Amino acid sequence: MNNLDTVLLQSREAFLQYRTRSGMAKANFLEAIASEIEALGDPLIQKAMEETNLPEVRLIGERGRTCNQLRQFASMVREGSWVEARIDTALPDRQPLPKPDLRKMMVPLGPVVVFGASNFPFAYSTAGVDTASALAAGCSVVLKAHPAHPETSAMVAGAISKAIRACGEHAHVFQHVQDSSFEAGKFLVQHPLTKAVGFTGSFSGGKALYDYATSRPEPIPVFAEMGSINPVFILPGALKVRAAKVAEMYAASITQGVGQFCTNPGLMLSIQSPELSSFTQQLATKIREVAPATMLHPGIANNFIKNRGKALKEKGVTLVAESSVPAKSNQGIPTVASVNAEDFLKNPALVEEVFGPYSLLVISKSREELFKALDAIPGQLTATIIGEDDELVDYADFIQRVSDRVGRVIINGVPTGVEVCPAMHHGGPFPATTDSRFTSVGIDAAKRWVRPVSFQNFPHGLLPAELQNQNPLGIWRMVNNTWTK
Amino acid sequence: MNNLDTVLLQSREAFLQYRTRSGMAKANFLEAIASEIEALGDPLIQKAMEETNLPEVRLIGERGRTCNQLRQFASMVREGSWVEARIDTALPDRQPLPKPDLRKMMVPLGPVVVFGASNFPFAYSTAGVDTASALAAGCSVVLKAHPAHPETSAMVAGAISKAIRACGEHAHVFQHVQDSSFEAGKFLVQHPLTKAVGFTGSFSGGKALYDYATSRPEPIPVFAEMGSINPVFILPGALKVRAAKVAEMYAASITQGVGQFCTNPGLMLSIQSPELSSFTQQLATKIREVAPATMLHPGIANNFIKNRGKALKEKGVTLVAESSVPAKSNQGIPTVASVNAEDFLKNPALVEEVFGPYSLLVISKSREELFKALDAIPGQLTATIIGEDDELVDYADFIQRVSDRVGRVIINGVPTGVEVCPAMHHGGPFPATTDSRFTSVGIDAAKRWVRPVSFQNFPHGLLPAELQNQNPLGIWRMVNNTWTK
Repeated sequence: MNNLDTVLLQSREAFLQYRTRSGMAKANFLEAIASEIEALGDPLIQKAMEETNLPEVRLIGERGRTCNQLRQFASMVREGSWVEARIDTALPDRQPLPKPDLRKMMVPLGPVVVFGASNFPFAYSTAGVDTASALAAGCSVVLKAHPAHPETSAMVAGAISKAIRACGEHAHVFQHVQDSSFEAGKFLVQHPLTKAVGFTGSFSGGKALYDYATSRPEPIPVFAEMGSINPVFILPGALKVRAAKVAEMYAASITQGVGQFCTNPGLMLSIQSPELSSFTQQLATKIREVAPATMLHPGIANNFIKNRGKALKEKGVTLVAESSVPAKSNQGIPTVASVNAEDFLKNPALVEEVFGPYSLLVISKSREELFKALDAIPGQLTATIIGEDDELVDYADFIQRVSDRVGRVIINGVPTGVEVCPAMHHGGPFPATTDSRFTSVGIDAAKRWVRPVSFQNFPHGLLPAELQNQNPLGIWRMVNNTWTK
Repeated sequence: MNNLDTVLLQSREAFLQYRTRSGMAKANFLEAIASEIEALGDPLIQKAMEETNLPEVRLIGERGRTCNQLRQFASMVREGSWVEARIDTALPDRQPLPKPDLRKMMVPLGPVVVFGASNFPFAYSTAGVDTASALAAGCSVVLKAHPAHPETSAMVAGAISKAIRACGEHAHVFQHVQDSSFEAGKFLVQHPLTKAVGFTGSFSGGKALYDYATSRPEPIPVFAEMGSINPVFILPGALKVRAAKVAEMYAASITQGVGQFCTNPGLMLSIQSPELSSFTQQLATKIREVAPATMLHPGIANNFIKNRGKALKEKGVTLVAESSVPAKSNQGIPTVASVNAEDFLKNPALVEEVFGPYSLLVISKSREELFKALDAIPGQLTATIIGEDDELVDYADFIQRVSDRVGRVIINGVPTGVEVCPAMHHGGPFPATTDSRFTSVGIDAAKRWVRPVSFQNFPHGLLPAELQNQNPLGIWRMVNNTWTK
């Protein structure tokens, strides 16, 4: 691991220089990365298609989202208010003691280790949101490429290197590590110069990194986005008036991207009724129509087959429908199963994620049993409620309880499709993530990589621009308890 | 532990009700607590004097700070902008996909367990900053009283109960636990209904709680403020012009409150020179003049005697001065020792805290050796630099490196005396705290107990007031990327 030790030493050196760069300089750098990725053109898309089996239109869209993210972070740091500047000016004559001048702002944590994700080769990988937000925050980044798309990752890393040279940034502000061994990941997380970790992937992978990080002599934060089954509560009134529409919407959401989105709806819950039976039949019809498709890599496909098989054998679980088209090797088979709430409540295995195009419908006998089923579901990225306006009001307390255990509550929509905007929270209580207080989508994702520092009684010339009296950057600040620009 | 299980179940029930209370209701409650504490009058001060050996004037000041904190949090939640509301309105006609309506704000985590601190019977104990900030955030609180001041704690808990009744809050929104056993603390932290922990005390205590919390099946955040030796770098120019003044200021800071402040300056660092020798003599003279005083409780006094003795026996450490007044039992002896930087750099034991009126002066041979000594110091709450204006500019890079490892940098002051205001950051990199990203002083302390939730496509009537279109609370929000009120 000598070479990885060097990588962290270089990252630390780069950090010490990069942390002093202005918001303007960082914005130019992030925008240059976006432009260099776009300049890679069609060969990048073709390479990603080859390595991930994802369709062209999806990858073009994901590249757009990735560059859009980079530019949103660029806007954020160019504008500058994100550092949460607070100024309390001195009161030298205060009795019984004078009040000192105090000024506070966010500063970057240090070198960040980012693990690329298999299911988003652009948006959560090499120049994805973890890298973009860490660079925006002023941290250096060591990126461990996901072994399922090494060449795609190398191409994007090359684009970042070009941007580094074009902007005159430190050569090691971003470093690309291709070692896919378990030991390499462990070494990077345990290295004393690593100050934070970003990860998107499986529960077992994320939890292992969390355990390494929290048992270091100096514990560090790990932002691991792990499994989520994204429960969908379908209320009786909605089924009465639009069962077919909901069935169609969910057949699409469950199978979108071969079910390989972290917000894939893996659990649907409702109350038994003739309308629910009708909905189930309509959903079954739609699911049968969706053809199996090749998953990201053989490991994921094998796990899907294994976990789906295991889930279908659990007590009380019955197959509702699967794709009527025979599956080839490494393909995910669109599947819906069902179970009654009584069996569901007795079996914690039924809230484990089956990563892929699989969803389990839990049928309650009553509203009370539906409420109990909610309590059996651990922390999630999202939960969705499908209901008519009047019944949503009737279920207001229930919706409140739902929001207690998730990061995002959706009314009458689908959880798939994560909008990149300031009001998005992509995170949630454990085990959805290791830290429910932070998002991995949207500009607030940069908050993961910073901490506050107070500057007391500083000579004005030594203060960062963000905290100088004349507010040279024109940012929003809380000055003597009042927000001002 | 049956009774503690009941405590957490009750806390959860109280939370489910309290979390829906308006900012106005929470503000009234916090202010009522402050008033009820003041209404306890002199008997509270007398009881605290008896239990902590702290002087009356200090305790009156600390009570004032505690009530001031409660009222600052009341102002914060009454004003309301602290929830970081973000609104991104829908774009139904956007191509290729419509953009949903998304709104985000902070919501409380759940029941919080707070451990009272021995060195601040009011400000960091029963109704101290952890309790006040958690109640402001909308969390219920289980307070484990510090066994060194049980009756003081019970009196303050009684004041909170009165405020609960007066404001009609849930009886269990605050609960007072007097069980001082190690097992009780462990049980509270490991209980599945506990969602976060606040602690101020020793490194061993805080780290043990952190380890319990991170190894739970569902890990939870622990905000433990632990040891800090608060290094003070005394630059050569300052010694040339004001050695006597600095010596006087530091003799007072080292011995203030018998050295029992978390920001006590336990380490001073400088470069050898005739002026440093003169400073050392002046500091010695002042330290000899300060009489020993009784510490908070016999356990702390015994540890001081033990740790001071151990420190003075470390290789190269010599006694510079100690109080000329003989110490009685349970008293802390004002002490300054010195060591050369060469020995300091070889011995990690010398950065361990000696809690009490003790400080170690590290003498470097050169500026370079001073820089090396900085690198040997782990994370701290504060660092101080004493220097003339021109030399501060000369040391700008050094000051930047200092800020890399602390929560607050003070120029030409003393670290003791923690101002309660928005620009204060009281926290710092490990081992000063378990989470450098959050403060335990000032209104931002409430951020420890919340997480964001996004509400997607909600019927307007089901949105919290903070996120409704007409902004009924008149709070600052980021609406479609623009800050607005």
